[in-house]
Amino acid sequence: MELTSKLLTEAVQQFSGLPGIGKKTALRLVLHLLKQDETKVNAFANALTTLKNEVVYCKQCYNISDTEICEICSSASRSRNLVCVVADIRDIIAIENTGQYNGLYHVLGGIISPIDGIGPADLTIDNLERRVMNDNIKEVILALKGSIEGDTTAFYIYKKLKDYSCSISIIARGISIGDEIEYADEISLGRSILQRTPFENSLK
Amino acid sequence: MELTSKLLTEAVQQFSGLPGIGKKTALRLVLHLLKQDETKVNAFANALTTLKNEVVYCKQCYNISDTEICEICSSASRSRNLVCVVADIRDIIAIENTGQYNGLYHVLGGIISPIDGIGPADLTIDNLERRVMNDNIKEVILALKGSIEGDTTAFYIYKKLKDYSCSISIIARGISIGDEIEYADEISLGRSILQRTPFENSLK
Repeated sequence: MELTSKLLTEAVQQFSGLPGIGKKTALRLVLHLLKQDETKVNAFANALTTLKNEVVYCKQCYNISDTEICEICSSASRSRNLVCVVADIRDIIAIENTGQYNGLYHVLGGIISPIDGIGPADLTIDNLERRVMNDNIKEVILALKGSIEGDTTAFYIYKKLKDYSCSISIIARGISIGDEIEYADEISLGRSILQRTPFENSLK
Repeated sequence: MELTSKLLTEAVQQFSGLPGIGKKTALRLVLHLLKQDETKVNAFANALTTLKNEVVYCKQCYNISDTEICEICSSASRSRNLVCVVADIRDIIAIENTGQYNGLYHVLGGIISPIDGIGPADLTIDNLERRVMNDNIKEVILALKGSIEGDTTAFYIYKKLKDYSCSISIIARGISIGDEIEYADEISLGRSILQRTPFENSLK
């Protein structure tokens, strides 16, 4: 795609470097911004640089925060002896949206993936161990993706933590609401049978 | 979607103001940028503000340009008596990509659309008329979207220009009605330029 302006080309290239944004979409977004007031474009650019320069990761759980300890970790109304381990900040948002969880979190910053060159040392697993050691945590819930990498990471954490007094659980695997049973993958369907729950529980 | 950081919320809001970007996608893009080096994020932000502050619209055709007269208008190898009228800069890129057109362009900056409050005075139609009057233009090709608004705009321009000595043509309706010009495949779009027909024929 040939553009007649180098400034335009540069802006389009920046946008098309984002995940899931191709050149045509990038051009559409840039031309949209170009139609806005100068103040709006500056606000857009500022929001990004400010975020990058001033963002803080919570010292305890590694969630994105504006303060040293994030809102969730410093909340008085949350169960402080329950920690849910997630790969990414987006997983926290997804779990918070369910309204079903009232404990703390721990963001690993990814999952163990040799293909991508991510080993245990690249994640915040040591810090998780330190929390379990020092913070009187009763239960660690592993909420990681159901994949080889996710299972590997879960197993690695389990081995690290199993000798401490806290219990370690993993989110239920099963058939999602709305899924057709005939099209479900065999592993999920198999687990949903093995880990069946009393019918009364599903009514709560 | 509740986020624990105001800076993050601000950046996500800025992104989700872009067309076709929802909150989840916005969050994904922002978190991707957050993982990049500070220099990369600054380069991203700079590309936008620089574009907005320094961009020039070609004085002749209103294409985006780095100079007063754009590359196409100042090119010695293009037919200077042929002008293709488009709604948007993206349409120029699409037509250039076909390799079937070697004339100049004229960017209207939109199409007549009473619903969106866009009238003829908001577009560069008067400037087009001035070009036809002064620049020895032999043919004006109307390459506008096949919709009520596009047809209205084409008809408005036809009425404005029909008393001048230049001929007025319209791209062949090889492009199906309702399709966006920028997304049309190159062959159909190229043919539609080659097989343009006198405007009167499109009224029959």
